[in-house]
Amino acid sequence: MAAVRILVTGGTFDKEYDELTGVLFFRDTHVPEMLRRCRARLDLTVETVMMIDSLDMDGVGRASIVARCRDAAEHAIVITHGTDTMCETAAALAKALLPAKTIVLTGAMVPYAFGSSDGLFNLGSALSFVQVLPPGVYVAMNGRHFVWNAVRKNRETGVFEAANG
Amino acid sequence: MAAVRILVTGGTFDKEYDELTGVLFFRDTHVPEMLRRCRARLDLTVETVMMIDSLDMDGVGRASIVARCRDAAEHAIVITHGTDTMCETAAALAKALLPAKTIVLTGAMVPYAFGSSDGLFNLGSALSFVQVLPPGVYVAMNGRHFVWNAVRKNRETGVFEAANG
Amino acid sequence: MAAVRILVTGGTFDKEYDELTGVLFFRDTHVPEMLRRCRARLDLTVETVMMIDSLDMDGVGRASIVARCRDAAEHAIVITHGTDTMCETAAALAKALLPAKTIVLTGAMVPYAFGSSDGLFNLGSALSFVQVLPPGVYVAMNGRHFVWNAVRKNRETGVFEAANG
Amino acid sequence: MAAVRILVTGGTFDKEYDELTGVLFFRDTHVPEMLRRCRARLDLTVETVMMIDSLDMDGVGRASIVARCRDAAEHAIVITHGTDTMCETAAALAKALLPAKTIVLTGAMVPYAFGSSDGLFNLGSALSFVQVLPPGVYVAMNGRHFVWNAVRKNRETGVFEAANG
Repeated sequence: MAAVRILVTGGTFDKEYDELTGVLFFRDTHVPEMLRRCRARLDLTVETVMMIDSLDMDGVGRASIVARCRDAAEHAIVITHGTDTMCETAAALAKALLPAKTIVLTGAMVPYAFGSSDGLFNLGSALSFVQVLPPGVYVAMNGRHFVWNAVRKNRETGVFEAANG
Repeated sequence: MAAVRILVTGGTFDKEYDELTGVLFFRDTHVPEMLRRCRARLDLTVETVMMIDSLDMDGVGRASIVARCRDAAEHAIVITHGTDTMCETAAALAKALLPAKTIVLTGAMVPYAFGSSDGLFNLGSALSFVQVLPPGVYVAMNGRHFVWNAVRKNRETGVFEAANG
Repeated sequence: MAAVRILVTGGTFDKEYDELTGVLFFRDTHVPEMLRRCRARLDLTVETVMMIDSLDMDGVGRASIVARCRDAAEHAIVITHGTDTMCETAAALAKALLPAKTIVLTGAMVPYAFGSSDGLFNLGSALSFVQVLPPGVYVAMNGRHFVWNAVRKNRETGVFEAANG
Repeated sequence: MAAVRILVTGGTFDKEYDELTGVLFFRDTHVPEMLRRCRARLDLTVETVMMIDSLDMDGVGRASIVARCRDAAEHAIVITHGTDTMCETAAALAKALLPAKTIVLTGAMVPYAFGSSDGLFNLGSALSFVQVLPPGVYVAMNGRHFVWNAVRKNRETGVFEAANG
C-alpha cells in the first residue's frame, strides 16, 4: 500500500462560512473528515502547512512548502492549494529539483463545506494520480493531470487547461 | 485529452429513496450530474448499460458489459458497479481478453443521493487511474487500485483489500 | 421562553443507510443535531421513546407514547413519528384526554441523513405550531397543521390532506 | 388552506458562492426549490422584491416592502430578509399600520446553498407561525417568534433574543 503525505495549505477547499460576519474564513482543514467519509485505505499522513487563500501565497510560503516536500519521507505527496496561484507553486516545486518525488497539487472551485463542492472528486483524483505517475510535479484538476509547466487556469471559465510552459 | 467511456450498471452509487414506499430503487443515473458538479473536462461519453443491484448481476448481464467494452471505440473505460459482485464482473472482463483496453470498475458504499456518499471521490479516483494505468482490468475503491485477480471485498468491513487471485 | 418536550419514536426522519447491508435502519436520533444546526433557542428536552418504523407501531407502543405525554411536565409536546400510522397515534393521544397539552406530531418523507430531506422544515413547523396552538392533538406536515381527526395521509401522493374524522 | 405570500428580499438565505471570484453573491432565490423539497401544500405565492444583503437595505427598500405588503391580497405574509437589519424592517412594517395582516420576517445564519444551513427550519417555522398568529409584525428565528418591538439580534452570538422595544 502506497505511503502518501497530504500537505494542506488552505484554498477554497477548506473555506468555511462565518455566520456572524458573513465572510468566508479558514478554521481547521476538512481533509481528514473527507478521507474518513471516502473510506480511503492508503497509508496517509495529513500535515497542515498553512491555511491561506492562495492569492496570499508568497515566496516565503512557497519555500515552506518546498521544504516540507524535501523533508517528507514519502515519495508521493498531494498538496491541497488554492487554484488562483496553484501553477506558480507547482513551478516553485519543480525548480526545487526533488527528483525522487511525485507531487500532485489539487484544489477546489467550491468549498467542501458547501453542498455542491468538487473537492471530494479532486481529492480522489489527486490521490490516484500520485500513486501511479512518475516522479515530477503535476496539477490535477477537472479530472485531468498536467505537468507543472504545461497548464494554466483559465480565469474566465475557472477550468485548468493545457498551456505551453 | 483522453477519451473515456463510462459504462453505468447501477449499484449503490445510483440508488435513490422512494418516499412513497420507503425503499431504495433505481431511476436515472447520477453520473452526468456528478461530472458537471466536478467540472470534469475529459472527452467523456456516459452510457447506461443497466440499472441493477449487483446482487442481481448474472452471466447475461456480464456478457452485455463485456460486449460494450469490446465495442467501445475508447481505450479507457470506467464501469460503475455495485460493490457486492464487482470482483466477479472484473474477472469476466479479464477473461474476455481485451488487450488494448484499460478498464476500471468502481462503486460506492453510500448512494450519491445521500449527503455522505463516497461516490464523488471514487469516481474521481477511477477516472484518474483509467488515464494512466496500462491495459488491464482493475478495481478502484478506497483510494486504491487493484488488478482484477488480486482484490476482494471484505464483507465485514466493506473495504476492498489485496487478495491472492 | 416556551418549554417543549420532543418525543422521538423513529420513522423515516431518523432512518440511516447501512453501508454493509444496503438497507435502511435506525441508530440514534438526529433530532439533537438538527436542533443545533438550526440554532433552536427554546427550552427543549429531547426524549427517545423508541426507534421504529411506524408500520411496526402497535397498541403497546402507543400506550407508551400516551404515558410519556401524560407524565411530561411540559404543556407543549412534539412527537417525531413515521408518516404511515401517524394519524392512528394522533387518535390514540386524543382519546387519552390530556386536556392541558398541545401535542403536535410530525415526520418526514425522506430521511434527514439524505441530502434532500424535508425533515428540518417539518421540525421547524411542528416546533412553531406547538407554541401557539391551543391544547389538542395535531399533525403538522406539508407546512400545514390539522386537528387529529381531520387529516389523512394520501398514500398515492404522500401528502397529508384534510379528511372527515 | 391558508393563502400565504412570501416576499423575498435576499439575505444570507439566498447567497451563493461565485466560483470564479470566490465571493458570495445573489442570483435567483432558492425559496421555490425549498418549498418543493419540503412538499409545502399551502396556497403559496412567491414574489421577489429585491435580492440584497440586508446591510444594504435603506428607506427606499423598506418602503417598497411595505407597499408590497399593503398591496398583497393575502392576510398572511412571510418575508425572507437578511438578519442584520431584520428588526429595522419589522419596525418599518409595524409603523405602516397594516391592521389586517400577519407578517412574519425570517432569515438564515448560513446560506441555503451550504450543506449546513438553518434556512429550511426557519422557513418551516415562519410559514407555520404566519398561519396562526394574530395580525401584527413578528420575527421568527431560532424556533421562536417575537413581536417586532420586543426582539434584537445579539451580534456576538448571532441569536435573536427578547428585548425591550
